[in-house]
Amino acid sequence: MTGLRIGPALIVPVTAEPFTGYVEVTGGEITHLGPSPTDGPAAETVATPGRIVIPAFVNTHCHTSQQLGRGLGDDVGLLTWLHERIWPYELALDESDSELSALVCAIEQVRNGCTLLADPGGRHVDGMARGIAAVGIRALLGRSAMDSGDGRPEGDRESTAEVLDAQDDLAARWHGTGLLRFSYTLRTIFNCSDELITATLERARELGTVVQMHVAEVPEENEHAVATRGVTTVRHLDRLGALGPDFLAVHATWVDDEEIALLAERGCPVSHNAASNLKILGTPRIADMLDAGVHVALGTDGAPSNNRMSMIDEMWLAAIVQKGVRRDPTVLPAASVLRMATVDGAGALGMGDVVGSLEVGKRADLVVLDPFTANFATAADPVSALVTACKSENVESVLCDGEWVLRERRLTRVDEAAVLAEAADRAAAVRRRLKL
Amino acid sequence: MTGLRIGPALIVPVTAEPFTGYVEVTGGEITHLGPSPTDGPAAETVATPGRIVIPAFVNTHCHTSQQLGRGLGDDVGLLTWLHERIWPYELALDESDSELSALVCAIEQVRNGCTLLADPGGRHVDGMARGIAAVGIRALLGRSAMDSGDGRPEGDRESTAEVLDAQDDLAARWHGTGLLRFSYTLRTIFNCSDELITATLERARELGTVVQMHVAEVPEENEHAVATRGVTTVRHLDRLGALGPDFLAVHATWVDDEEIALLAERGCPVSHNAASNLKILGTPRIADMLDAGVHVALGTDGAPSNNRMSMIDEMWLAAIVQKGVRRDPTVLPAASVLRMATVDGAGALGMGDVVGSLEVGKRADLVVLDPFTANFATAADPVSALVTACKSENVESVLCDGEWVLRERRLTRVDEAAVLAEAADRAAAVRRRLKL
Repeated sequence: MTGLRIGPALIVPVTAEPFTGYVEVTGGEITHLGPSPTDGPAAETVATPGRIVIPAFVNTHCHTSQQLGRGLGDDVGLLTWLHERIWPYELALDESDSELSALVCAIEQVRNGCTLLADPGGRHVDGMARGIAAVGIRALLGRSAMDSGDGRPEGDRESTAEVLDAQDDLAARWHGTGLLRFSYTLRTIFNCSDELITATLERARELGTVVQMHVAEVPEENEHAVATRGVTTVRHLDRLGALGPDFLAVHATWVDDEEIALLAERGCPVSHNAASNLKILGTPRIADMLDAGVHVALGTDGAPSNNRMSMIDEMWLAAIVQKGVRRDPTVLPAASVLRMATVDGAGALGMGDVVGSLEVGKRADLVVLDPFTANFATAADPVSALVTACKSENVESVLCDGEWVLRERRLTRVDEAAVLAEAADRAAAVRRRLKL
Repeated sequence: MTGLRIGPALIVPVTAEPFTGYVEVTGGEITHLGPSPTDGPAAETVATPGRIVIPAFVNTHCHTSQQLGRGLGDDVGLLTWLHERIWPYELALDESDSELSALVCAIEQVRNGCTLLADPGGRHVDGMARGIAAVGIRALLGRSAMDSGDGRPEGDRESTAEVLDAQDDLAARWHGTGLLRFSYTLRTIFNCSDELITATLERARELGTVVQMHVAEVPEENEHAVATRGVTTVRHLDRLGALGPDFLAVHATWVDDEEIALLAERGCPVSHNAASNLKILGTPRIADMLDAGVHVALGTDGAPSNNRMSMIDEMWLAAIVQKGVRRDPTVLPAASVLRMATVDGAGALGMGDVVGSLEVGKRADLVVLDPFTANFATAADPVSALVTACKSENVESVLCDGEWVLRERRLTRVDEAAVLAEAADRAAAVRRRLKL
């Protein structure tokens, strides 16, 4: 018997043409898509006339531990942002703070239609894991690895072996636990030795997971790479054998034509974070990357880099910023941007066979959108409206692995009001401890 | 006796420091602001613990007649956008379409906390006026004036005298009717003769209202101005005596240092529309303009130029785009952006003494925001969060001229669901007529 039947609605599979019909889910898996439902009863039937059903978004860069630090880095320069705000903030968190931070972040992800996020690594991964799991969504967890370099705050210095051991331990504990996976992560080339990078790649490939690394964020990073390794970051990573489909290059804000070609040739995905880039790092050449065949996905970065942790806003921003950069309104058309936020995101996290599109056999991560709002109701094209006019207020219900995590605008697993009240208090307490 | 007492809340007057307390309104006017309410009863008391009260936003550029055309101009170049989509669309509307379009637009404005918009001019001003008035907000109405130049569609050709007569007639009918004012408008220098520009300035100054004009939108416009008038648009407008506090230069996307200095010196306000600029026109040097002392306000433009008709989104976008353009996260700090969206917008429309800030003696146009959402609750600074983290979902109630137009997320004067359903049908009908 069918478990869950949703329809009729405009179904946007992303990997196929939109159609009006039904999606059915049994055992957490998509078992049917079509203009008519299957014969026979369903355990649960959800009528969705006029609604739009899309695959849930994939956020390929989401610092869940920074959620209590929203607004800490506003209107200040990069060095102040990092050294005086973010590093002290991260050090000030205990595991319980990290858990609450991740919990609030996961709530915001659900309210914006996202059910899979890649966390590039906080310090208290056990807390993060519990916070995310409480809301019922997927995550690729990471622990921010640093073993060298200047600028690391006191209290955050570990040897290469310590960093690797800690990651191995977390991988054993969390990889494949519920909806969670573990991912070996590298912070930046400023703070990762070649030994750490190489050993991390080996371990990740053995585990069959991806590596996340902040890459070519600022011009100074390339200068540092040239000074210490003789070539820019992307070129050096290629020499180390890092670049490939299982290596997620986050940001790639400052890359030249040859590096773009290299990323494309190696099949190395890029996580583009339009808001955080604009705010702090610079605007990457995403339209050029797409022309060159680079696999580009989208992400929000952390709350203090992007005060809106929304893949919906990120799609809109990514599209119009690249149109502006190129002065060409035809670049990053809506269908491409929607792919970047869904199936291409899943692919970038090594989960392209699991989620990211509505296809029979994939796990059921989907969003029911209500377009009956002033911002959406008159739109000429639903796919274009998804990317440019949609807002979090259109997110009505969210299914993750076949279970409702948001149902008619209510979180199903957590008491949202209580969590938000505690999170607001805790964020204020952290700011008091930091005298910010 | 006090009419309406709102509080306790975090009151953000914009022209003064935020404080926790009360705002009181009698006869549509703000009569008290302070940490405590006045003595004595109030006709209506609204308890707002934990809420944030701000002046309502001012949208200085909002084509209300384009609301049924949302999505018509997505992912196409500028000439296709204008000649094959927008002009045919505008010609396809009858007065009843324009009324419905303006009605839906006004609903979206209210849901995004805006109670005053400047419409640069549709063809059916009577319809626009009725649509906006039905929702209960303010508008500066205009009729798009064109008397010359290439490219005007058939069916849209009038002589200078006809254009002026039609505007005079509308001014007599609508200026000062309810919450509406009339504004003489000029489309662009491509389609306005010097005779029309000069006569329009005279009439507007006689009526005591502002002139709205699209200025220096694309490089080709400056080339046209040089070819036909000998100098660029801004310089030519200055020679005609146009530039001043009562002349709203919309966009000003392509201006040089000398023109920026001229706009500053003349006190000529600029309406900056960040989303529409990115999508179609280019990114103006807003940070440079502010440094030079130019009076900059914000606007959304029309639905097909900016699929989100939200001043809240526009604040966020304006701030981070200029940070990115300058590669300096300190430009356009939150407090300045909030001013641009409120009191500076009111000033740009000649209504700086009426609305735009919370001050005793001003008319009561304000927004009650509910910050108890995942995107807002943990924010470090409420003013910064207003600009960067706030979304339309935080807009709880909106007061215009002392009357609730949105009350606990419900429109008070119109049946929103019925309007949206009719608007969706009508938008589809227009697209069918246009074969789009």
